[in-house]
Amino acid sequence: MAHTQSVRVGIDDAIPDSLLASFPAAAKIVRLPSDVYPGDEVHTYEIDFWIPPFFRSTAERVFAQLRGVKVAQALMAGVDWLLWLPPGITLCDGRTIHNISTSEWVLSAILSQIKRLPHYRDRQSQHLWDGQVAWAGGDKATDKKSSDEKNSPHPKPPQLLVLGDELHGKRVLIVGYGAIGEAIEQRLTPFGVEITRVARSPRSSNPNGPNATPPVHAVTELDQLLPLAQIVILILPMTPETRGLIDARRIALLQPGTLLVNAARGPVVDTNALVAALEAGKISAAVDVTDPEPLPPEHPLWHAPNCLITPHVAASTTGLLPRAFNFAATQVERYINGQPLENIVGKSGY
Amino acid sequence: MAHTQSVRVGIDDAIPDSLLASFPAAAKIVRLPSDVYPGDEVHTYEIDFWIPPFFRSTAERVFAQLRGVKVAQALMAGVDWLLWLPPGITLCDGRTIHNISTSEWVLSAILSQIKRLPHYRDRQSQHLWDGQVAWAGGDKATDKKSSDEKNSPHPKPPQLLVLGDELHGKRVLIVGYGAIGEAIEQRLTPFGVEITRVARSPRSSNPNGPNATPPVHAVTELDQLLPLAQIVILILPMTPETRGLIDARRIALLQPGTLLVNAARGPVVDTNALVAALEAGKISAAVDVTDPEPLPPEHPLWHAPNCLITPHVAASTTGLLPRAFNFAATQVERYINGQPLENIVGKSGY
Repeated sequence: MAHTQSVRVGIDDAIPDSLLASFPAAAKIVRLPSDVYPGDEVHTYEIDFWIPPFFRSTAERVFAQLRGVKVAQALMAGVDWLLWLPPGITLCDGRTIHNISTSEWVLSAILSQIKRLPHYRDRQSQHLWDGQVAWAGGDKATDKKSSDEKNSPHPKPPQLLVLGDELHGKRVLIVGYGAIGEAIEQRLTPFGVEITRVARSPRSSNPNGPNATPPVHAVTELDQLLPLAQIVILILPMTPETRGLIDARRIALLQPGTLLVNAARGPVVDTNALVAALEAGKISAAVDVTDPEPLPPEHPLWHAPNCLITPHVAASTTGLLPRAFNFAATQVERYINGQPLENIVGKSGY
Repeated sequence: MAHTQSVRVGIDDAIPDSLLASFPAAAKIVRLPSDVYPGDEVHTYEIDFWIPPFFRSTAERVFAQLRGVKVAQALMAGVDWLLWLPPGITLCDGRTIHNISTSEWVLSAILSQIKRLPHYRDRQSQHLWDGQVAWAGGDKATDKKSSDEKNSPHPKPPQLLVLGDELHGKRVLIVGYGAIGEAIEQRLTPFGVEITRVARSPRSSNPNGPNATPPVHAVTELDQLLPLAQIVILILPMTPETRGLIDARRIALLQPGTLLVNAARGPVVDTNALVAALEAGKISAAVDVTDPEPLPPEHPLWHAPNCLITPHVAASTTGLLPRAFNFAATQVERYINGQPLENIVGKSGY
């Protein structure tokens, strides 16, 4: 770990100064081009601490101009897009930066599916009110009644239809119990759900004290846990081990009606198997990530039933960049003071 | 209060026996017709304790056949549809029955609007992926670029667009702080919001002990509180005082960008004023109730911008009926034992 008074921090030229207000005075900000284009004059930049731009191809082109990089601080929770960095460079991920935005998206997606909001959105677009008052008259015709029933002096009495489900009481499996998984659990808890946690490394429960932690199952137990869940949340890093983790065989283990939520990376799920299970009416899904991405217009996932799709936007919120650069500033300060960095990415990719 | 060994409980014939399993043995269930039709033979039913059907017109027709009713136990939180009952009958509302379903709907509606899920649903219907990866190439043309930019050797660099908002940090005003309001607050708390509460009667904070309660402002302070909120949740009973409470004058007090959530009753909000504020882009809204209801197909609220509409379904969930009849069973038991009933509706309508 370098122990130096002044540290050169390489940051995209497009990042406004206002986001860098919390950087320590001993950090010398070196502005880097936002991208490199064919025919550009070749520059090189000597820096110690690099904050890569958010996109893989851009990051690769900019990195080719850098010299002396010791630390790369990603501002995303997942760093699968930066694993090509040479081994001599300490890569730190953005663990904690996305806790708020991604856990909020997960709750939004679950509740939206449970309350059938995509269905009601479609009905709203058609100016159609299909709620309980459509049934309130008792003598109103509905498309479920035969004409015999309509003409009967005793038509079918009004019924209070069950129009949505409840999150309350559901068994939820969180697959990938890191910082975002914990943030999801915090927000789920008041809804009265039963939560089970899975991670690469199992942890036994520590029920006491201010740092009490719940038990976490090993991913090797996944096949036993999947059939018990009603909601499965994927929020694990993408690594060679997790690619294709939720394949046709594991989807077949899910009970009918399970809601599968993917807030991790698209290739963690076998897309063809997902489409088949949705089309068979076996499960529902809510995904912020797909494989491939962007999802091409002709892809069958777009119109598979009971599937909510957002275009990889879960993390991208108003609060993200201030939080990200505040975290980067604390890391630069640690580096300057010779303190251990947080969020160092190991060989396993997280 | 009657003090009797056997109590006759009048219940809609369409309610399955399975929902009545928790009724005490001393309750004699009297099955009532689900509705009364012109030309039906005139029956009368002697009962003590009535569980009205869910719809006003049906309840009125059935009630005309009843004799001896001492208690009417509604299975809805709001009882504005039953206030025509003669004053000699004790009316109890369904306070607590809808805590779970309605508070879940409110969280769903808020998160859905904050995360722009209706927008993404529309994009999904069009098979359009408009997330950050559309901007990832840097050299990709986007419809925001001029053709000069597209042909430039230095096209606009990639940008991480801010694609959604966050619930975290928002100032939330709960208007109508009863049982459902408390249930909403419980579920909002882990999101890190700042909650202010309004009710008809102010209560000072009681911060200590197991029954700690937060401060509740009087509805007379509403005009001072509305301009401070970023999210306003209406979950108050409909009474002559609350009809039109959120009128054009009060909507004008809201700060631009406020999200107005109506989970109460449609006429609490002046619909024309709401439509005008939405069309002006001043606020967004999420409503489960409207005025009129059902909303006619030609009504401008259907296509007002940034408005999520569900057709009065918030309370209607899978868990509702079991919860409702379990509560009714405890009320019948209290009545049989001569204990005070819960949820007695006062002259003010709640």
